[in-house]
Amino acid sequence: MDLSQEKIENSTKVDKKMLIGLHLGNGYGSQPGAWRMPGVDPTSYTSFDARVKQAQSAERGKFQFIFLPDGPGAMLADIENEAPSFNLDVMLTLAAVARETKRIGLVATGSTTFNEPYNLARQFKALDVMSHGRAGWNAVTSSGEAVAANYGRTIPSSEERYGRAHEVIQLIQALWGSWEKDAWVHDQESGQFAKSEQILPINLKGKYVGSRGPLYIPPSEQGQPIIFHAGGSPNAHELAGRFANAVIGAAFTIEDARAQRNAFREAAERYGRNPDEIKYIPGLMTTIAKDRRTALDRRIQLTEHLFPQRVAYLQQMLGVRLDINRLNEPLSKEQLEAARPSPFDPRSRHALKIAKEGWRLRDVLAHGVIDYHPVIVGPGMEAANHMQAWFEAGAADGFWISADVNADGIDAFVDEVVPILQERGLFHQDYAGKTLREHLGAPEQYGIDPRVSSPSKVSVV
Amino acid sequence: MDLSQEKIENSTKVDKKMLIGLHLGNGYGSQPGAWRMPGVDPTSYTSFDARVKQAQSAERGKFQFIFLPDGPGAMLADIENEAPSFNLDVMLTLAAVARETKRIGLVATGSTTFNEPYNLARQFKALDVMSHGRAGWNAVTSSGEAVAANYGRTIPSSEERYGRAHEVIQLIQALWGSWEKDAWVHDQESGQFAKSEQILPINLKGKYVGSRGPLYIPPSEQGQPIIFHAGGSPNAHELAGRFANAVIGAAFTIEDARAQRNAFREAAERYGRNPDEIKYIPGLMTTIAKDRRTALDRRIQLTEHLFPQRVAYLQQMLGVRLDINRLNEPLSKEQLEAARPSPFDPRSRHALKIAKEGWRLRDVLAHGVIDYHPVIVGPGMEAANHMQAWFEAGAADGFWISADVNADGIDAFVDEVVPILQERGLFHQDYAGKTLREHLGAPEQYGIDPRVSSPSKVSVV
Repeated sequence: MDLSQEKIENSTKVDKKMLIGLHLGNGYGSQPGAWRMPGVDPTSYTSFDARVKQAQSAERGKFQFIFLPDGPGAMLADIENEAPSFNLDVMLTLAAVARETKRIGLVATGSTTFNEPYNLARQFKALDVMSHGRAGWNAVTSSGEAVAANYGRTIPSSEERYGRAHEVIQLIQALWGSWEKDAWVHDQESGQFAKSEQILPINLKGKYVGSRGPLYIPPSEQGQPIIFHAGGSPNAHELAGRFANAVIGAAFTIEDARAQRNAFREAAERYGRNPDEIKYIPGLMTTIAKDRRTALDRRIQLTEHLFPQRVAYLQQMLGVRLDINRLNEPLSKEQLEAARPSPFDPRSRHALKIAKEGWRLRDVLAHGVIDYHPVIVGPGMEAANHMQAWFEAGAADGFWISADVNADGIDAFVDEVVPILQERGLFHQDYAGKTLREHLGAPEQYGIDPRVSSPSKVSVV
Repeated sequence: MDLSQEKIENSTKVDKKMLIGLHLGNGYGSQPGAWRMPGVDPTSYTSFDARVKQAQSAERGKFQFIFLPDGPGAMLADIENEAPSFNLDVMLTLAAVARETKRIGLVATGSTTFNEPYNLARQFKALDVMSHGRAGWNAVTSSGEAVAANYGRTIPSSEERYGRAHEVIQLIQALWGSWEKDAWVHDQESGQFAKSEQILPINLKGKYVGSRGPLYIPPSEQGQPIIFHAGGSPNAHELAGRFANAVIGAAFTIEDARAQRNAFREAAERYGRNPDEIKYIPGLMTTIAKDRRTALDRRIQLTEHLFPQRVAYLQQMLGVRLDINRLNEPLSKEQLEAARPSPFDPRSRHALKIAKEGWRLRDVLAHGVIDYHPVIVGPGMEAANHMQAWFEAGAADGFWISADVNADGIDAFVDEVVPILQERGLFHQDYAGKTLREHLGAPEQYGIDPRVSSPSKVSVV
């Protein structure tokens, strides 16, 4: 073995840092009971102060970005007992945060299905200028009849939704790039406001959408916003591989995450891109406390009201009968032996593993075995270990973190997890650049990336 | 004559106060040369700091609102020499201003033609919540092929545009009102987040638009945003008379303004409303300085580069030949006698009046005889006199002010005009209420005003 070669590989490995994003939703946190927790302002749902403070916490922790999901419609499932999941309006939230932070990236979901492309283009570009180059657009298609009904429609077929999405993104990137880099001169002396020959119409028309342009907004410090995508279907691989610099992912195991990450990287290569230009970022949910017991008790407080339905669901996952009246007992030897983890729910094996560790049924649930992403319930070291393992296994370029309760859960992550990652050389000590593009190592871009443009999707009129 | 009656009438008259709004456009000011003036930051076009500072000046002057026009598309007429007219994005600007002001109302234009109603509804309602009840929506139809082309369309007929506008406003007001006043309880003790029986779908479907709802946003401190409208056609009278609490007007004479105001008031009455619920607010452009000469010189500096084309246009207005090489001379006796003011341009009589006062041709133009609204070029007293005359003649309930140069023109108005109006009892000394509805004296509203709802326009699905 050539030792000099090994040394180079090691140093490369150490140099690569993971990305961390903060999930910013309804202002309370990701757990349904967050709004009722002691110390939580019950009006955080409508509080922009709360969102700003939470984003500032993430910036203190040097997170590369905050991420605001959106889903206009299916938000009122159990309004009697639970807060809706999302922001009142993602763009207004990010505007407030942009004014009161300096470095952290600002990423919001915007539907390619139920928006006029020109409106999306100008609003994200304006945010990009406002934040001095920190905006990212999570470009997703909308699904769900509940959402469509709010727009007086039905949901288009998957083919139509993704066909439109390809066009909308191309159109918007073209609008973003309709001013060349140095088009805006604003020279008071000569009286030249802009170089008109460097501001051109885009004249694009596709099957679903079209626009003449140009947009009236000059480039930001990063040129134009970055594209994110969320999803894991072959359609998602294709759309993200073509346009995205980052993917908001969801995976429960290293194996699944690695397969997803590779699928996105391969799709990027098919479009002639360097696969390192697309970062795969799965989710991680956290309840951080000084020890496992304290964290479990916190999590019990947050989710106890859901235990009846969750016991029923856990029964499905494990294939054994469970008794809601025996929450304070571990699963019996017979139950554990009879358990057959469901192959249809990727969380089932992990749930059985936790049950076999001998935890009370109440604590098995409190480990978050039924949630949207892997869950850490314990001291910061456990989160750091999880993140390191996934990162080093090639399963993730970073993570988006959902704190259980935003009011103190973000600070807990920043204070208890980030320093460990930094000490291990896995996370940057501070922001090196000022723009989201710099934070992600994404290449400069003005207009449509010529490598991915395709006249078959959107044609010149 | 019954003296007690007269006394009541007088006191009523004195008690009624005018409204003042600030036009906030591209950040430089309303004059094309504003961006080049000394002391003006040439990057104000992209500066949210500049907008916030300007709004704060207006708030210092106790203005009831700021007004942001919008016209997505036809903004780049002479980009080589002039800044576009509008904000990068009106909602992001208002979000920034909302966070950094306390009382002033926040009104933005939003097209009923090129927006999804559900998206408009949630963004304006979110702004209303963010600003604690200070939002207003200037609901207008879009016209102009340049705008339509940015949406890949052509402009619909006037009938279609206004038909859709009626539906869109009804839909949006219904969405805004889909939470009853006390629906959001957020009681941490009991665990009740909201009263689900007070949050209802709207289930509206018209010819052009539809929505199921409900919106997921609770009422603001003023319930829901106020509707503004802009325009002067019979269609505008009808739309505003039905829905609006204020009209952004444009009129060059007291007679025209009074006729417009009456037309809107009569339309409101046709919908069973008190005509005082609709405020007619024409525009006023100002160049305020210590005396007329100083103001004229400032205005010359701002517009001199446009004099060749303006001399040509003034020639059309007056019906006499004018010589661009004789800018420093008044019009001759022969020219003044031959002049026939154009009946097709309502500014022509005023232009001739100024010319007859003996001003040099350069100064005639510097009086702003060719501009979008009446123009005051002189000391604050002249603006106060104009406003008092229009207000007392029943031609206006207030004015929206376009400063020539925002950087110092807003402060000039606040310092030189506002105190005179206050001293004369024509303008309030301070904000009495906290919401835009309170500033305008508009009645409380949750959902569609039952007086104006009409099943013929939007029907229940």
